[in-house]
This record gives sequence, C-alpha cells and structure tokens, in this order.
Amino acid sequence: MFLRNQWNKSQCLGVLSFALSVTLAQAEPGMWTLDHLPTAAMQKDLGWSPSADWTHKALLGAARIAGGCSASFVSKDGLVLTNHHCAAQCIEEISDAGKNYLKEGFLAKSRAEERSCPAMEVNRLEKITDVTETVKRATQGLSGTEFQKAKNAVEANLTAECAAKEKEKIRCDVVSLYHGGQYKLYQYHRFQDVRLVFAPEQSMAFFGGDPDNFNFPRFDLDMAMVRVYEGGQPAAVAEFFPLNAQGPQAGEPVMTVGHPGSTQRELTLAQLQARRDNLALNVLPRLSQERGLLTEFGERGVEQKRISTTELFHVENSFKALHGQLDALLNPGLLERKAADEAALQEFVSKTPALKNEVGDAWQQIAQAEKLAKDIRPAYSQWESGAALQTRYYSMARALVRGAAEREKPNAERLPEYNESALPQLQARLFSAAPIYPEFESLLLTFSLTKAREVLGADDEVVKQILGLESPANLAKDLVARTQLGDSAVRHALWDGGMAAVMQSQDPFIQLALKVDPIARGLRTRYEKEVESVITKNSEKIAKARFALWGDRQAPDATFTLRLSYGRVKGWQERGRDIPPFTTLGGAFTRATGAEPFKLPESWLAAKARLNLATPFNFVSTNDIIGGNSGSPVLNTHGELVGLVFDGNLPSLGGAYWFDEAVNRAVAVDSAAIIEAMNQVYGAQALTQEMLGH
Amino acid sequence: MFLRNQWNKSQCLGVLSFALSVTLAQAEPGMWTLDHLPTAAMQKDLGWSPSADWTHKALLGAARIAGGCSASFVSKDGLVLTNHHCAAQCIEEISDAGKNYLKEGFLAKSRAEERSCPAMEVNRLEKITDVTETVKRATQGLSGTEFQKAKNAVEANLTAECAAKEKEKIRCDVVSLYHGGQYKLYQYHRFQDVRLVFAPEQSMAFFGGDPDNFNFPRFDLDMAMVRVYEGGQPAAVAEFFPLNAQGPQAGEPVMTVGHPGSTQRELTLAQLQARRDNLALNVLPRLSQERGLLTEFGERGVEQKRISTTELFHVENSFKALHGQLDALLNPGLLERKAADEAALQEFVSKTPALKNEVGDAWQQIAQAEKLAKDIRPAYSQWESGAALQTRYYSMARALVRGAAEREKPNAERLPEYNESALPQLQARLFSAAPIYPEFESLLLTFSLTKAREVLGADDEVVKQILGLESPANLAKDLVARTQLGDSAVRHALWDGGMAAVMQSQDPFIQLALKVDPIARGLRTRYEKEVESVITKNSEKIAKARFALWGDRQAPDATFTLRLSYGRVKGWQERGRDIPPFTTLGGAFTRATGAEPFKLPESWLAAKARLNLATPFNFVSTNDIIGGNSGSPVLNTHGELVGLVFDGNLPSLGGAYWFDEAVNRAVAVDSAAIIEAMNQVYGAQALTQEMLGH
Repeated sequence: MFLRNQWNKSQCLGVLSFALSVTLAQAEPGMWTLDHLPTAAMQKDLGWSPSADWTHKALLGAARIAGGCSASFVSKDGLVLTNHHCAAQCIEEISDAGKNYLKEGFLAKSRAEERSCPAMEVNRLEKITDVTETVKRATQGLSGTEFQKAKNAVEANLTAECAAKEKEKIRCDVVSLYHGGQYKLYQYHRFQDVRLVFAPEQSMAFFGGDPDNFNFPRFDLDMAMVRVYEGGQPAAVAEFFPLNAQGPQAGEPVMTVGHPGSTQRELTLAQLQARRDNLALNVLPRLSQERGLLTEFGERGVEQKRISTTELFHVENSFKALHGQLDALLNPGLLERKAADEAALQEFVSKTPALKNEVGDAWQQIAQAEKLAKDIRPAYSQWESGAALQTRYYSMARALVRGAAEREKPNAERLPEYNESALPQLQARLFSAAPIYPEFESLLLTFSLTKAREVLGADDEVVKQILGLESPANLAKDLVARTQLGDSAVRHALWDGGMAAVMQSQDPFIQLALKVDPIARGLRTRYEKEVESVITKNSEKIAKARFALWGDRQAPDATFTLRLSYGRVKGWQERGRDIPPFTTLGGAFTRATGAEPFKLPESWLAAKARLNLATPFNFVSTNDIIGGNSGSPVLNTHGELVGLVFDGNLPSLGGAYWFDEAVNRAVAVDSAAIIEAMNQVYGAQALTQEMLGH
Repeated sequence: MFLRNQWNKSQCLGVLSFALSVTLAQAEPGMWTLDHLPTAAMQKDLGWSPSADWTHKALLGAARIAGGCSASFVSKDGLVLTNHHCAAQCIEEISDAGKNYLKEGFLAKSRAEERSCPAMEVNRLEKITDVTETVKRATQGLSGTEFQKAKNAVEANLTAECAAKEKEKIRCDVVSLYHGGQYKLYQYHRFQDVRLVFAPEQSMAFFGGDPDNFNFPRFDLDMAMVRVYEGGQPAAVAEFFPLNAQGPQAGEPVMTVGHPGSTQRELTLAQLQARRDNLALNVLPRLSQERGLLTEFGERGVEQKRISTTELFHVENSFKALHGQLDALLNPGLLERKAADEAALQEFVSKTPALKNEVGDAWQQIAQAEKLAKDIRPAYSQWESGAALQTRYYSMARALVRGAAEREKPNAERLPEYNESALPQLQARLFSAAPIYPEFESLLLTFSLTKAREVLGADDEVVKQILGLESPANLAKDLVARTQLGDSAVRHALWDGGMAAVMQSQDPFIQLALKVDPIARGLRTRYEKEVESVITKNSEKIAKARFALWGDRQAPDATFTLRLSYGRVKGWQERGRDIPPFTTLGGAFTRATGAEPFKLPESWLAAKARLNLATPFNFVSTNDIIGGNSGSPVLNTHGELVGLVFDGNLPSLGGAYWFDEAVNRAVAVDSAAIIEAMNQVYGAQALTQEMLGH
C-alpha cells in the first residue's frame, strides 16, 4: 500500500561507468506542484491540459491526512474519501474486545452514528507563497549549528506569522523543493474533528493481504469514508470531486492529486549508496524481525491478534516497499544512469565559471557527510529517533519532557517540531483517547531495547545506564506496569504543569525520558552540525546547478505536499505477458479460496447474486506516485473522481529513484466498484447518492 | 560462533576503479591443507615450522563433526573435545520436559553414564590422494548436463572404490580445491557411536548470549566433550593432543587445525556482487523474520522455549555471521581490491597466448550464469533446496522418496548425496531417535509455506497446487497431525520397502514429496545445466590462470576440509583502543548482571571462592579461521592443546572475502580455564587427568 515510509540514511562509495546517453533528467514524468503544472507537456501527451478552474478545484478538493495519507472531499457536506488502510488506526481504536470493526466493517446509518477518530487530522492546502529569498537571506554565510539554528528560526517565524490568526484552524509549513532550490510557505486549513462514516471489512479492503500487496491483478475495496466537522456540524466545502458512476475507460487520460511522501531522484550517488547500505544492513533486517515477532504474538489469542493487526500491516507494508527500493538500488542500471546524470552535471559545473567555485566540491562534501552519518547513526537512531524505546509510553513521555523545556523558549529558538505551528497536531496525538494495550507495549519495548543492545553493544555506556542489571524483558515489564501515562488526564496534568510538574513526576517513563533527553539532544546537535547542515547547504548548491543546466523541466522530489501526476489507464507487459488494466468484481469470487487472506467476507458471498459481476473493480494507470499517495483521487478531465489510488505495482517501488513508464503503474479502486459495492453489498445508498452529488 | 553456514548465490553487475597496487593475491595468510604447508613462510613469520612428525600428529589428532564443526582427540581413549554449541543438538535431544541438560549441564560420572548422541558422527581424515587428472579426463570436452553427469559419475566411482572395503567405517569425498584447480580424494575414518561425556550449563558456555556473540572480550566456557566408541568400547586412538595446563603466552606462535566451512576469496567480482544482492534481498530478511518468530514462540511456555532454543541460536548466529559478510561486501575497499586483482589476472591472460583463447571469456561466462541464477533461484531454493517446506518431516519424506528412486540406479548415475559413500550418514540422520516436536514443526512449516507464497507469488502454479484452498497454517497443522514419520519404525519400513512401499504410503508428507519431487528435479537439472556446470568449468579455467600467474602461494578457498592456520596470540586496536588478548575467570564475575544472558549459573557462583580468578579464560589470536572452525584445537609448537576455538571477532566475519591481519581475530577458550573450571566447578577431575595424559 502506498503509505508514507519513514527512515534514515547511510553511506558507501563506488565508481561507475557512464555508458547511457539518455539521462534521467529528461525522462521523468514527475509529481508536479499545482502552482507549476507542465501544461505544454500534458497537452502534447494527453491532448488536454487543465484550465485554471480545473486546477483550482483540484487544489481545494484534495486533502491530506496528517499521519501520512492522501484523501479528497467527495461531497459538499465534508465527506472525505480515503483508503481503508489510511483509516485503519481509527477503526482499530473505536473497536474493542467486544466489537471488532476491522473485521466486521462499519457503517454509520445516520450522521448521529458517525464515530469520532481522536488521533486523525485532515488538512486542505489553501495557499502557496514563495519564501525562497527570505530563507536564503537568513542563512547566508552560515554553516554548521549556526546555519541550522538560523534556518529553524526563520521557518518558525514564517509559520507562526502565517498561522497567527487562527492557530487551531490553520497549519503552515515551510517546504523545501528541489532540496533547497526553492522554499515555499504552504498554508493549510486543518480539520481536527474527524468522524468515521464507512469502512468495509478489512478482508475485502485488503483482499489477498500481504501476498497480493503491491501486485496486480487486484480485487480490493480499499476505501473508507470519514466526515470532517466544524462547530459540531458537517463542514461545508465549496470544492469537491463528485464520483463518476462509470469509472474510466482504457486509455483515458487520468490525473492523480495527492501527497507523495518522499522520492530520492535528486540525491547524489553517494547518498543513494548510503541509503542502499542502510536498507540492507539495518532497516530491512529490523522490520523482518519485528514482522516475525508480531505474527507470532497474534497467535497468543484473538485479542492479541486484534490489537497487533495494524502494526503488523504497517511493518509488512514497509518491508515490501523498502525491499522493492533496495532491489532498485542494487540494480546496476539505476546506478549507472544516476552516475551519468551526475557526471553530466559535474562537467557542466566545471565548465561554467560562475558555478565552478561555488558548487564544485558539493558532491564530495555530501559524500563526506554521509560517511560521518554512518558513524553517528547507530546512537542517533536509537536515542534521538527513539528506535531503542519503541513504545507509545515513551513517545508521550518524551513529548511531555521536551514540550516542557521547549515551550519555555521563544518560538524561533525551539526544536521545529515544538514550534507554535506544530503544537496543535502534537497535542492532538498526545491527548488522544485511543486505547493503549500494556501487553503489546511491553512486547515492543522488550524488542526495541534488545535491538538497542545489539546495535550498540552490551558495553555501550548508555545501554548499561538504562538496562542496569535488568534484562530488556524485565525492565520493559516493570516500566509498563508502573507507568500512569496510559491515563490521558495524567498526560494533561503533566503538559499543563510544564517543567515543574515533569521534574516532580514519579512516572518511570518520564524519569527515563529525563535521563535520555540530554544524550539524545547531544546526538542531534552533532548530527545537525556535521551532517544535516552540510547536506542541506550543499544540496542547495547542486540544486542551483541543476536549475542552471536543466531549468525546472523536472518536478521536485516529493515532500508529502500536494502534487499532480498525469497519465493514462493502461496495462503493461511482464515477462512477455500482457497485464490488462482492469479487473472485475467477478474476479474476486474466482480468486477466493475460503482461507485468509483470500477469504471473502460473508456480506459479499450473500450479495453475489445482486452484484453486476462485470463491474470494473481495480485498474492500473501510468501515473507517477509513491508512498503517501494512498487515498489520492484519480480524476478525469471533467474533474470527476473515477478512481481511488491505493497501491502501486512492484516495479513502481523503484519509483523512489526513477520512473519507468513502461512498467511503473498506480493501482486504484474503480469508482464504479465503489458505487456498486456500497449499494449492493452494504446498503449505503444514502452515501452513494451524496457522492454522486444527487 | 564459528559454525558452518549454508546458503545460495546471486548476481549483479558493477564497474569499479583499479586504484590499489597491493593485491589480495599477495596478502592472505590462508587456511592450508596439511599435505602442502607453507613451511618457509612459517619459519619466517614464527621462527618455527612443523616437522613431519608434528604434522602427522596434527592430521590424525584433528576431527570433524559431520554436521558442521571441528573437534580433536584429547586422550588415547577416544575422548573428543569440541564446542558446547557443536554438541548442543545432542544435549537438547537427550533432554526432555523433565530434565533440561542445556540449562543444567551434563557430566557422566563414569563411562557407563555417557549418553548416546544418535545424530552425531565424528570423522578423522586419514589419507589424501590427488585425483585431478582422473576427474578432468572424465569431463574433458563436455558441457552442461553432460559435464555434470560425467563429473558426478567419476566422483561416485572414486568414492565408492575408496570406501568399498569398510563402508560403515570409511567415508570418502572428492574435494575440489582452488575451484576446480585440483581434485583430491579424502579418506576419513568414521565414528558413528558417539556419546556425550560433559557439557557445562549453556548459560556459561554462551555467557553473554547473542549480544556478545562475535565480540571480545569474552568469558565463555564454550566446550563439550564426547567419546567415540567402536565395538561397544571406547575407541583407541594413537594420536591425540594432550592439554597444556598453563595455556599460551601473549605473542606465542599457535596453530589451529580444523575444518573451515567455506570462503569466497577466489570468487569473481560478479559472483561477489551476486552474493551481496542475495544476502541483502533474501537471506538476511528471512533469517530476521524467523528470528522474531522463534523469540516469540519461546514465550508460549517453558517447554516451547526449550525445544526452540537450539534453532534460535542457529538463526541468530547465522544472521550475525552473514550480516558481517554483507557489511564486508558493501565495503567499497573490498570490491575495489577484488577488482584490482581480477584486472591484473585478466591482463595477464590477455597477454599470455596460451591462456587467452582458453580462459579469455571465463569471467563473462560466470557473470552470465550468475544472472541466470538470479532468475532460477526463487523456485530452485523453494523446491529443490526445500526452503518452502522447512520441517524435519519433509526432509525425511524427501530422503525416503529420493532414496527409493536413486537406489534403483547404478551408483555412478545417482544424485551425489545418494551415492554409496554418502548413504551411511544419510541413514544415521534419517533413523535418528532424536525427538521431533509437532507444535514446533508446524510453526516452521507454516512460516516456510507463507514465505514460499511470498517469494513466488500467490499465482505461482506450484504454490497453488500445494496450498489448494488451504492457508499455510491450516495445511501445516493438517499435515503434521496426520503424518506417521515421527515414528522411526515407520521410516525404517519405508526405507527398506523401497519404491513400492513409498508409492503405497498414505503418509501426507510422503505424498507431498512425491508431488514436489519431479518439479524439484526439473529445477535442479536446469540449474546444473545452465548455472552450476558453467561456473565449475569456467572457474577451473580461471584457476588455471591463477596458478600460471601466482602459483600455489595462496591457500585454496575453504571447503569444510582439514586446514592449518598459523598465527600468534595477539590483541588488536579498535577505534584507537587496545584490546588485550586475554580475559580472566574473574572478569566473568565482574561482567555478570544476574539477568540472562549475563547470568552466571549457580555452580559458578558457588565455586567462586575456590577458583583462581586470575586464570586466563578466553584469548584471541591472529589465526585465519571461519565458520566450521568451531571446536578447532589451538596447538603450540609441541603439539599440545592450549586453546579451543569457538568464535571470531566481528572484523573476522569479512574473512569470507579477505583476511586483514590487523583486526581479524580467532577467539578461543584457554586450556588453563578448561582445567580450572572442570576441577573447581564441576568436580570432573577424572576427565582433566585423562586430558592431561596422566
């Protein structure tokens, strides 16, 4: 599934041949910002390009789920369509041992039955302002810690000023495009009252489960609907995408608007190799181990299975996505083409006097910083990224401890994730009433402490300080048994009480966070000074050279901000076989075996006779998407929603580094299937009428 | 721990710079066969070289444990010293829910109390014959399947002839050295009646557990003793290594004689890259997932922990060893030096008319075969290597099904693992009375079937054929519930009944093996024809070029056959710190925390006052070893045993590809610690007297 993935970087070295004449720089369709669409190329490729009105509607009809997904408004009454897997956390949270909505599905028969999703926030982008000059002026001539501080400060000021009028309703972010080539201020409308309206059974949303994930043909109703409320009423939205009841045709031009999380197409060769090494040595082994652990934890009982399902899905999904990325990074073709690109750019720089001095050694500087990052990363990822303490209790304790310290500082001097613009979302997460399961937290904490000792060694001073004479399992059990942070009233009191309350707290996770925090901050300072600021500065230089050579013919790397990608509904060829672009509802019945994850829910078996089995179910298109695009609407040239992106095929996983139109495909639920299933299986006619704009 | 690791290969391509002038070919100390020791170099490096008598004793005093370890004779009455982890399987097998010898340790107070290890076989190398000409003549001019058949046939004939007189007592193998540069016939004396004499508690043998594995300083009593019997009496052995009661001194020359499993120092660049890719994409993720699974399975209860401990140890040990290898393969320095070596050799070939035509394109041929291997491997590893069906029930079923078919053929036409020379060991494993735990087998089978579906896809024809409409978990449960193969009488009947009995069997694993076997054989035939024979033929050519350029100044790659490595007791430098070569018994008490795996057993806590805490416990030396060397004796120039190899340090894991004397270290138990612990902790004075030759 195309959720956003998070992780770190690393370093390695290699020298490659420059054999290919077609460089990547000319070959990417790309993920375009809506204030700078490639209309000429679209006209040429599709025979159509968007009017200003179409683009305006697309901008305001699109939405982002703050946790890492895309979505869109589909009615004037604030109805929001996204993927089931993007709402799964909420569905899990409103379930309990008695009622499992992941398993059974959920339908609010009336608006009164819509159920609050406490940790969910929906954002709608409303305004983009260019602040490149302001940011660059603030950091000019600085380096290391000073550079980082100045950058944090100017961004804190820009976002605070932007959100000043209505902090609860406006969110502002400074977005770096082209790795520092441009800085833009993005202003979002934030919806924090989000309620679940509809979700099918997970067995239908994720039919085929992990085995079919990132594959096609597919038969998934990976959809969920929430509604945003304001002042206790459904929010009135002016722009939304009505559903097209027929879905798209083969060959039809289609556009996705969504929030691709991150791509690495502009990284240097050294950065790609660092990423490859870290994936291979650290990230994939850890995910795999957690996968085995969670699978077997689910065997403890029905309740354990329920409370671990979403985490297991995230782990399996990340594993498969990152495995595909590693596969791409081990493909010599990719590195050769990247090297050819880099060599061409370096040659251009060396022959351009205005650039030679300024940009000349930027690649070596970055390579050097990546080398250093490899040394710093083990400790940094354990203590500052928190890999050693993988439990919600610790995340909350750390937010309370850091929050208390940071809020005493002026806004511009805080760690960016604690500045005024970021606090509302942080508080929403911190005070969420979503249940926490001690047995599960204890499992994850035991695992992560054990890994920390493995990564850093049993003789590491911090490891020794934290474990003392305890085993990871006993320490985890003891901390979890004694903490009060599961009670949101306790968290409220600590947040409101500030540093004084935190310092007096006897809670073991607060005390642990107080112990770890100075160590983590020290690592962060070092990392920012020696790695991050060096990479940012030198990436800006390389971006300048890229602009000089190639202009902005390329879309910027994805940054979990709104992008449009255009393409057509189209199958592909795999090992000489044609993969057709559509599946049908009937195909799901053919594929079903009766055993999970190929077991259809009762509701579908009962509805089979009523369903038009020829209805298109899922389809693929040539749109360029990536993790974070989950939940993106697929629009036709009339601005109607014809599909709902929920995945990419396996070749698309290499899309982090390059786009190959021959084989990369987005995978979507057909709007015709949405209508047919909601009407015939779930009796949700009121909702389909609302979405069709009737 | 330095157990032998098993796994497959893969492919990738890359072009590298040739910057370094010192090539690997001149830099390796190496693992030498005992019929060709580098005596001049030893004299130069150590100021000593072995006499013919010393070497003769070393040859006959060394032993191999057929499953994948080294060992040595330490008394005239057939007493054999090896590592605890090399005997763990036996220790686990003689344990049950009532008595856990892994946890409590084991000491036979008299010879009558020594306990049979049903699946263990000890081999002693007695004779080496050069058969290079015979093998090469048989395969001359052939390629593909014909080449492979001829090679199998000549080897089957050589080994059958060699073992003809006493099949039960003699084992013969054809060993390929220098990747086909030489072929030697190795004749072993086989001891199949092996009995456990002594093992300390696993918590002492493996003090520090996985966190400390491959680390130093260490404090492990990783030893176990077995005795070999013949005709119901302790076997009389003429050559053995008496223990030296003091252990070695810092700087003292020491020799290891043991059975390093495999190194890849002579592989081509394409082969190394293929190995890197396969480790990163397939091997490490699978091991990690199994690791998480087994860890959590052990939480089901005490008994589940007991029955899964040895498998978990193997998985964690393999993971750490292969992770170290991958780290080395991602090190640009390694690949650059390998490339420099390869370039030098290729240049030599291109300038040597006699070699140019014959050897010229061998590297490309191998690269091409590795590329093909990548396509064939997924199915090959699942069905022919058996990764899809990871349970002892299936291994046994397959041995019964294949055994029935192969034994109907003439010896020379059989699959090599079923030829006459191989049958005794196969039967020993097949008929072993070692207990099988259905719950555990079901866990592993569920896991492996799920992985097979993941690797090959849910639409794979063989996967569909095997799973049918079942989930992996249900299928596994059903097969395990219905099989009778846990009963060794049933296996005996099927083996003795041959093909007729197998075809009539209603056992579900036999039926499964009958279904899978033709598919697996087809994959094997294809792999042998298109990959294996191409690599073997072309490796022989490259070996010829290496001989022509470098002679036999290099030791051949390890092949799990007897090798000597020389070095000195010596610490190393790590991040600017000196790591001293010795630890002491007292250090274990300092390091202990009371929590596993840093918890000392009761026996040691009780004996503390009696122990001389200054006794050296573990030490490191510069000997070049690798997985399979576990259990190797460390000998002084007098042929006395001064240490017992049980591990290498982390840098030594790169030893698969190169040896760096600055940091690679072997880790051994000091003979002084063996004596002190057995006398003062375990009251095993009779055994220490026997080992001291008193």
